[in-house]
Amino acid sequence: MPSVSNKGLSMPESPIRKLVPFAEKAYKQNKKVYHLNIGQPDIKSPQVAMDAVSLHSLDILAYTRSEGSEEYRKKIANYYKANNINVAHDDIIVTTGGSEALLFAMGSIADVGDEVIIPEPFYANYNGFATASGVKIVPVISKIENNFALPPISEFEKLITSKTKAILICNPGNPTGYLYSKEEIQKLAKVVKKHDLFLVADEVYREFTYDGVEHYSILQEEDLAENGIIIDSVSKRYSMCGARIGCLVSKNKQVINTALKFAQARLSPPTFAQIASEAALKTPQSYFDDVIVEYKERRDTLIKLITAIPGVKIGTPKGAFYCIVELPVKDSDAFAQWLLEDFEYEGETIMVAPAAGFYSSPGVGKNQVRIAYVLNIESLTKAVKILRLALEAYKD
Amino acid sequence: MPSVSNKGLSMPESPIRKLVPFAEKAYKQNKKVYHLNIGQPDIKSPQVAMDAVSLHSLDILAYTRSEGSEEYRKKIANYYKANNINVAHDDIIVTTGGSEALLFAMGSIADVGDEVIIPEPFYANYNGFATASGVKIVPVISKIENNFALPPISEFEKLITSKTKAILICNPGNPTGYLYSKEEIQKLAKVVKKHDLFLVADEVYREFTYDGVEHYSILQEEDLAENGIIIDSVSKRYSMCGARIGCLVSKNKQVINTALKFAQARLSPPTFAQIASEAALKTPQSYFDDVIVEYKERRDTLIKLITAIPGVKIGTPKGAFYCIVELPVKDSDAFAQWLLEDFEYEGETIMVAPAAGFYSSPGVGKNQVRIAYVLNIESLTKAVKILRLALEAYKD
Repeated sequence: MPSVSNKGLSMPESPIRKLVPFAEKAYKQNKKVYHLNIGQPDIKSPQVAMDAVSLHSLDILAYTRSEGSEEYRKKIANYYKANNINVAHDDIIVTTGGSEALLFAMGSIADVGDEVIIPEPFYANYNGFATASGVKIVPVISKIENNFALPPISEFEKLITSKTKAILICNPGNPTGYLYSKEEIQKLAKVVKKHDLFLVADEVYREFTYDGVEHYSILQEEDLAENGIIIDSVSKRYSMCGARIGCLVSKNKQVINTALKFAQARLSPPTFAQIASEAALKTPQSYFDDVIVEYKERRDTLIKLITAIPGVKIGTPKGAFYCIVELPVKDSDAFAQWLLEDFEYEGETIMVAPAAGFYSSPGVGKNQVRIAYVLNIESLTKAVKILRLALEAYKD
Repeated sequence: MPSVSNKGLSMPESPIRKLVPFAEKAYKQNKKVYHLNIGQPDIKSPQVAMDAVSLHSLDILAYTRSEGSEEYRKKIANYYKANNINVAHDDIIVTTGGSEALLFAMGSIADVGDEVIIPEPFYANYNGFATASGVKIVPVISKIENNFALPPISEFEKLITSKTKAILICNPGNPTGYLYSKEEIQKLAKVVKKHDLFLVADEVYREFTYDGVEHYSILQEEDLAENGIIIDSVSKRYSMCGARIGCLVSKNKQVINTALKFAQARLSPPTFAQIASEAALKTPQSYFDDVIVEYKERRDTLIKLITAIPGVKIGTPKGAFYCIVELPVKDSDAFAQWLLEDFEYEGETIMVAPAAGFYSSPGVGKNQVRIAYVLNIESLTKAVKILRLALEAYKD
């Protein structure tokens, strides 16, 4: 029997995946499970986008251009201009989700064995794309004690080698909710310019910022024109995770030309999803205003309730809709499994994402979980009550 | 300025891409261009699929399961059973087009530097996926003189090394239109079993066979249960290239579990496209009957007209909707460019795909082009007339 590749064997499993059988067991026991573990918002997608697909008049569901239609890319460029990011349509390649934009970015800038420095904890799937691309992730540890702010630049510089090709950030951060300040972006700009690296920024949560703090994009920093690559997606912005439309943005022509070759090999991004995504650009501002009010309320509720639990630490999120919570447990993997298998309160329990999968340093984050506040206030309140009671009952 | 990766630099450009500026020039001169160069059928997508999307009732365009919904995969398994291919839903991973299925297959079975043997000429994008995966394509030359039939197994065996992981075939073939016989599949089965290799078969044109010859799938061959991997797609079957839905099928559990990890990293295939693809499974047989009659007529017309041109050879296609044509020119790249730039007949010209891009052996296929018969009979007839007149006028 032929065997699979070493690459395949080392592909990481999703940190949540191994909990799925336990969740299924809980369902079978008729337990209600509050999902704090996933980034699938319960917010409705914009009506204008859903309607555009209902009203499609396609006879032939044909390929689009590999880089996305010129019209759609021009509209995306206008969206960026409205966000003070000055890019043109030919700085943009439409991708199948932010996932594909990341894969194209890694393939375009790094060879097998090259290194990318990422502040950890980081979005777990960066590990998957790095393994698929043969790229080594070099983590810089950021700390819950200061809400996962940017580690000192000296910590990055210690890790830069001849193999280093890029620094990758997620801003606002999944799983930390941290929002980098303009000053932090400028520090990063300086270090990537100095060492001739790319700065790749996953900015898919751009709109989700709270407390009046504004997102500062890497491409607002003019110095980064040749070094900056934005990874973007419609998934969270419009609660359209299932569209699978994103884009890669760079003013570096060599990067765009290279990413385009990866895009050509896979022919085109999905057509119906592009119809939805193009229409979504007409979403009224009131939609976002409402969404932000809703998420802010959830966040405030979550922080208030979590910080009232004894022995628990939280990295206060300033953006996105996640936070990392440190629990008085030894192994959050075992705790998460126990919550599904052995705990219930009035027939209900919760599912959380153990945080070890968001770190690449071994052993770090083992007492942490990621919580996504994508549930309404009532469910969120119940879910945190369950967490509190569970921690009281749990012995590890 | 940081530079792109060597991998990115070696990513091949689409063989048609470099002709695009010349096509655009032709449009500007108001020339009508018949596109013999692309595999985008002019056939309507099934109404049942287009309607299912129009009638969607989604509030939230959410992620689906990474491997595709159980319901959809069960229906795909039924489709295979109806085609005498006995697989279960958990032998299937739904992918974003056949493209992603190929990428997952290469990543799951081959490491950087490993080799895959492919009869050439082959689908040009295999080069792209191989480069992206760090895999080396080792070509076995098949010949226009015998319609690109399977080369002798001894030719494969000469090329097998410790690095060889798989033989990859496209059946029916793009760009050759060749349909492998049951005997040829059995010969391949024997050699992959003997050398412990995978046999990967791109069967996306399964339905497109002519002259009453039936397609024989690698997974109809019971011996291949552990060695066979099917790459499939809805793109051509239902003229839904823009859906970007395909699948990877294998009865080898290790392959499925490994491919699933690649699938999890990119979260899910596109949701609207899965709605269309699931509905497309209800397409009535009359749709396919009509399509096959249409393509057969086009093929017969094409063969008759092409063989009447002096000095031209054709690899008679038995399936799919492509053929390779050998022309009395030295360099089909230059000829294809000249057709767009310098030739016209009654204000019209043609665009063809130079075949060198379908070979990885240097210098081979330079006097060949691929013709896709995705135009109606009238257009096809005019297009071949233009080819004949152009060859009379051309001096290289």
